Amino acid sequence: MLIFAGDLKVMSASSHHKDEISNLGEFGLIRHLTKDLVIKNSSTCQGVGDDAAVLDYGGKKVVITTDLLTEGIHFNLVYTPLKHLGYKAAVVNFSDIYAMNAQPRQLLVSMAISRKFTVSMIDDLYSGIRLACEQYGVDLIGGDTTSSYTGLTLSCTAIGEASDIELIYRSGASKTDLICVSGDLGGAYIGLQLLERESKLFEQERDFQPVLDGYDYVLERQLKPQARRDIIGLFTEQGIRPTSMIDISDGLSSELMHLCTNSNTGCKIFSDKIPIHPETRRVAGEFEIDPLIAALNGGEDYELLFTFPVQQFDRIGKLGEINIIGHMVEPDEGMKMITPHGDVITLAAQGWNSLI
Amino acid sequence: MLIFAGDLKVMSASSHHKDEISNLGEFGLIRHLTKDLVIKNSSTCQGVGDDAAVLDYGGKKVVITTDLLTEGIHFNLVYTPLKHLGYKAAVVNFSDIYAMNAQPRQLLVSMAISRKFTVSMIDDLYSGIRLACEQYGVDLIGGDTTSSYTGLTLSCTAIGEASDIELIYRSGASKTDLICVSGDLGGAYIGLQLLERESKLFEQERDFQPVLDGYDYVLERQLKPQARRDIIGLFTEQGIRPTSMIDISDGLSSELMHLCTNSNTGCKIFSDKIPIHPETRRVAGEFEIDPLIAALNGGEDYELLFTFPVQQFDRIGKLGEINIIGHMVEPDEGMKMITPHGDVITLAAQGWNSLI
Repeated sequence: MLIFAGDLKVMSASSHHKDEISNLGEFGLIRHLTKDLVIKNSSTCQGVGDDAAVLDYGGKKVVITTDLLTEGIHFNLVYTPLKHLGYKAAVVNFSDIYAMNAQPRQLLVSMAISRKFTVSMIDDLYSGIRLACEQYGVDLIGGDTTSSYTGLTLSCTAIGEASDIELIYRSGASKTDLICVSGDLGGAYIGLQLLERESKLFEQERDFQPVLDGYDYVLERQLKPQARRDIIGLFTEQGIRPTSMIDISDGLSSELMHLCTNSNTGCKIFSDKIPIHPETRRVAGEFEIDPLIAALNGGEDYELLFTFPVQQFDRIGKLGEINIIGHMVEPDEGMKMITPHGDVITLAAQGWNSLI
Repeated sequence: MLIFAGDLKVMSASSHHKDEISNLGEFGLIRHLTKDLVIKNSSTCQGVGDDAAVLDYGGKKVVITTDLLTEGIHFNLVYTPLKHLGYKAAVVNFSDIYAMNAQPRQLLVSMAISRKFTVSMIDDLYSGIRLACEQYGVDLIGGDTTSSYTGLTLSCTAIGEASDIELIYRSGASKTDLICVSGDLGGAYIGLQLLERESKLFEQERDFQPVLDGYDYVLERQLKPQARRDIIGLFTEQGIRPTSMIDISDGLSSELMHLCTNSNTGCKIFSDKIPIHPETRRVAGEFEIDPLIAALNGGEDYELLFTFPVQQFDRIGKLGEINIIGHMVEPDEGMKMITPHGDVITLAAQGWNSLI
């Protein structure tokens, strides 16, 4: 048989029925595509469905995660310096590795570049990637460099390691566990609003000089996020082991949904416990955005969201930069947020979805 | 410090000096970007510079390779059915793993898709990826699914395993080793010419029916390439260990250059020893293409190119599907091809380069 039976429909690639991908959304499409995957190799411990896949090659567990960024969808080069883009592209993958309580060790970077890019532009991009690798102790070990018709596409794959007992999955939370978050939320989304406003003003008037003083914190959250290696270090130092963990890339609501779905729990969080930086709050005010909405649905904060047994309440309270925002509940109670007035809001994961 | 000193040049992404990437080419750009990379982690055995990177996590060696494919540059959906595209995208990564004399075990697939794609189209793409994984015993373990403004971008990362003594690098050839190639060459390139001709005729006349009978072999070489797992199996069976190896993705000349550069040798090959399939030869004639040029510079054949000590000449002769095409020489003799008339041609690696 030459090729797949009935599959060489030359010149008919567009004859498909219009079943829109936006109806499924990103998570729906992933579930649809991966729902009956069967694992064949003993070296595969965990496939689709966590921050990273887990492999066992007879020594340490190998943790691997990948990310694809396209120009115009994930980044706008009008206000994202290429060095920052490279730095962020690397760091967000390290964040996925830390979210497994593992240490990133290697990075592969592939890029497709169109004719508008010069060698010094790619140097800038790479300098950011390399700086991130230096700061996080990661080796840049290869990738693929090729061309595209339009814009820049960046694909990063990070590899990390952990021992079996160190690994923390999304699925380990119990129905009474406390829910914690590191750092603060919503800043990256507010920083993005600021950059988009300045870029629109610039489009209207080319002489325009963007005013970015007094916005340092939210800009840094958007343009130079950090992966929370320090929090993972704290866990090791204090001998603490979260029961489940995920990094916040799509917004608190979306990540809570992943923990609840994978751990078969519901959750109850308290709106006044969600940590928000004063500058995030102030700039959100300028934009007439509710900072809570930015925290719940904004995404790109790369903080860690994790759960602990309620018996360890005291111990967690002593860790700086960690806030207890609520607790898990029975799955049939759903995902709820309680306001200081006692209102109960059902959380919907409206995290950023590039497919809609 | 907020961000990288002097790097937040908002609205100035296009102020760079026009230093053209095409002046460097793909290999030049990679060398430029990676020339002073330093390895920090003990788990990194081999970084940039072979078919795959090699990691050591205390058990088997972990081999990892990645590939980025963009619509319009690497594939044309007018004549490439999506199932074939998925199959090929996976298989070419497995081929890189086999070229290290390792076994592929896991695959990560990321894709960025524009609005023209429907769920059933992505299903077709995935069915090809999954078929390849089944046939080669590989687990599909994850990836990233996101959107793009234009067309389809596909990023595949394959992970494999081998013991330390099994691994074969590009750098192991000696100056008298024999040079061998599996299967035959040039077919994939000729198949591509055929598909491009038929697609142009179709553009001129929409009622046009492509005539593809009698072209089975070259079409299969282009649309459904195989990774040479069988050759790796033969090595194990016969207790043979090549001294260096690479897979032929960019054309024989280009891959020979990689072996010679990495092993610090020159080479002498004989044009009448280069294996070319009768159908490749016949269809090349129709297109008035020299089949030898297709073999040397066409690429996408995914055969294995490897070297053996000359003392094993007898043993290699007994392996079916393997042709000895020449031998390594001192590096100062360069890369030469000898014709049956005794003409000496200097080989230049003119393999396919998407960056020119």
